[in-house]
Amino acid sequence: MIAEIVSVGTELLLGQIVDTNSAFLAQTLSALGVDIYYRTTVGDNPDRMRATLREALFRSDIVITVGGLGPTMDDLTKEISAEVLGIELVIDQEIEQRLRAFAHKRGVALPPSFLKQALVPVEHGSPLPNPNGTAPGMIAERNGKMVVCLPGPPNELIPMVEQSVVPAITEKLGAGRTVIKSRVLRIIGIGESLAEDAVKDLILGTNPTVAPYAKLGECHLRITAQASDDQAALKLIEPVEKEIKRRLGKAVYGIDNETLEQVIVERLTQLSQTVTTAESCTGGLLAERLTAVPGASVVFNTGIVAYANDVKEKLLNVPHEIIEAYGAVSEQTARAMAGGAKANDQSDYSVATTGVAGPTGGTPEKPVGLVYIAVASPSGVRVEKYNFLGRRADIQRRAAHAALALLREAIISDSQSG
Amino acid sequence: MIAEIVSVGTELLLGQIVDTNSAFLAQTLSALGVDIYYRTTVGDNPDRMRATLREALFRSDIVITVGGLGPTMDDLTKEISAEVLGIELVIDQEIEQRLRAFAHKRGVALPPSFLKQALVPVEHGSPLPNPNGTAPGMIAERNGKMVVCLPGPPNELIPMVEQSVVPAITEKLGAGRTVIKSRVLRIIGIGESLAEDAVKDLILGTNPTVAPYAKLGECHLRITAQASDDQAALKLIEPVEKEIKRRLGKAVYGIDNETLEQVIVERLTQLSQTVTTAESCTGGLLAERLTAVPGASVVFNTGIVAYANDVKEKLLNVPHEIIEAYGAVSEQTARAMAGGAKANDQSDYSVATTGVAGPTGGTPEKPVGLVYIAVASPSGVRVEKYNFLGRRADIQRRAAHAALALLREAIISDSQSG
Repeated sequence: MIAEIVSVGTELLLGQIVDTNSAFLAQTLSALGVDIYYRTTVGDNPDRMRATLREALFRSDIVITVGGLGPTMDDLTKEISAEVLGIELVIDQEIEQRLRAFAHKRGVALPPSFLKQALVPVEHGSPLPNPNGTAPGMIAERNGKMVVCLPGPPNELIPMVEQSVVPAITEKLGAGRTVIKSRVLRIIGIGESLAEDAVKDLILGTNPTVAPYAKLGECHLRITAQASDDQAALKLIEPVEKEIKRRLGKAVYGIDNETLEQVIVERLTQLSQTVTTAESCTGGLLAERLTAVPGASVVFNTGIVAYANDVKEKLLNVPHEIIEAYGAVSEQTARAMAGGAKANDQSDYSVATTGVAGPTGGTPEKPVGLVYIAVASPSGVRVEKYNFLGRRADIQRRAAHAALALLREAIISDSQSG
Repeated sequence: MIAEIVSVGTELLLGQIVDTNSAFLAQTLSALGVDIYYRTTVGDNPDRMRATLREALFRSDIVITVGGLGPTMDDLTKEISAEVLGIELVIDQEIEQRLRAFAHKRGVALPPSFLKQALVPVEHGSPLPNPNGTAPGMIAERNGKMVVCLPGPPNELIPMVEQSVVPAITEKLGAGRTVIKSRVLRIIGIGESLAEDAVKDLILGTNPTVAPYAKLGECHLRITAQASDDQAALKLIEPVEKEIKRRLGKAVYGIDNETLEQVIVERLTQLSQTVTTAESCTGGLLAERLTAVPGASVVFNTGIVAYANDVKEKLLNVPHEIIEAYGAVSEQTARAMAGGAKANDQSDYSVATTGVAGPTGGTPEKPVGLVYIAVASPSGVRVEKYNFLGRRADIQRRAAHAALALLREAIISDSQSG
């Protein structure tokens, strides 16, 4: 069963709004085992909408339109969908009454154009109730082709999909349907191509499939299985997941939506240990990521953003001589920042960043992107040097990510040796 | 001139990521006066990609692809685009050298699959430099049809578009074109409906148009004009911009992409004044937003994330009795945090946050979302109480935004009275 999403609206084409509905619909449909091959966005233009819907109905079994159900002249999705499917629409008395009551409550007469919202199929389909708006949706099926028309606002679309569309498509799928389940393995410390090389044979598999994705500072491997039900799909995923974990070891840091900071906060909570941050070039980003995790207060008490050199001395006890001899952006300063922060906070771990985030401030010896990260742990201090590419925000984000990765490694290696 | 955007990637079709690139591209192209009639998303499937690109090239003058330029087997966009356009690709020696140097720096041999990133057109086109990644883009034109291939990560795509694609398309457009120019006025401290009411008559205009957009913690008014060239468009925009500023006064804090933190850092730099942050519930987000601005080090020396109560006492000199009597989330604690931070840092301004970010920790008297924000300035301390809605991340983001807004107000009112 192949479905296709057609988003309608000039404001989408102009980029004035970001289309989050399509992602929601795509997730919902994949979870039902429906394949999606195309997603198209078209403006409020009748001819192009007609051409797009014809093409979509030709190549797919289910076409889901989003937007263009309102009362304005531009809103023509329902009418053109009916035309392309070859079904007739009439005004529904009950919906008309509801629209009139709605206008009455607001103390206005119903504008004539509003009445088109009451149009419903004479046969081959029905309106879809909209608890959060005036425009009902529509579902219609003819010659085995299904069209579903949904409103654009997410707070109207989402309940309509959950209450009406999912049951209808599930029924259309019938007994012989399949589900698709995915699991994402989040990998840090090795690049996308190395990760891919390590699991090349698994990538050639068809059920489950394994696909690599490069992300900022890490990479993801997505395992996707198709089966008759959720449990059978999970049974296909599990041995592949196990094998990837065996090959990549601790480089696999999380599953699905788990973040590095979640993994760290969880692990430190289990160990009853704490961490403190001492940031220069990341400017608070490290503290912010750790405190974004609910319950972070159990493992995190203090974060210092020591942007100026004298603050590094005053609040982190970095010796004046070290900054003078090696500079604020140096292995020695990073080491002293981490040591001072850990001692002051009496924490088990500390993580410190110092670097040149740019765009100015770089020199031939210390170019923009040079960052030192130090992690102090019960077993000592480790400092790493990085050269990050990109703009200021990229360098700050990459540095914070690398710092969390280094902190995680220290926690793992300490708890293994301890 | 008609353009079309083709996004490539199974993860987009499955709804695993939201496509923000298309909105950015659409905005950029509209600003150049290029019409966009369609946007299509297709998976990593060679046949469907070929069919989509053929259709797109048939009906549009410019086709812009996004994604699928990486080193993996799935990444086929450049190859298929070249095939559809009828041009040949060869390995570029210089790019190959760069890829080898990149791998060498990381201490690994270049995996053979990486080499495909060095493929460039023999004629009819050229690679587009990618300062933030290994995969170059491609631009090619044959028989009046242009294809532009861009990488998927936004931090690679955006600079490539700004540096290479906009100039190329501007040149292709040549003379006789009309341009669309927009200016966004960023408004804080009054709601979208109040802002809309204040400029209702201007919203009814047609050239320029004025459109309101609600954003997190603020609202935007976009003025858009169409004219024969940039200067003529700006001439249409300027009187309307002036009139809106006259009506809304200091509620207009910035223009276009200016952020609150940029405005603050710029103003403090002019005044040779400094600010320090003392954060509890925002956990570093305030410091991070201020230090995201290039040159922030001139006005920002220290940020303290005082998550635990004893850290508020130790590093911000909040009297133990105040926390005991009123609690950590209280007007009094916020006031003391701001005062202590300012005194310790000897800064001109300080901003402090304390609140219940949730999801746990709320009580009937101090529910999740309750946040106190204090700003200490040369003329005194002001504390405001807020009740933010949403999840933990929303509350943290809204609190940081409100804190910056309060800081800006204090700076403006001090410099007006002083």
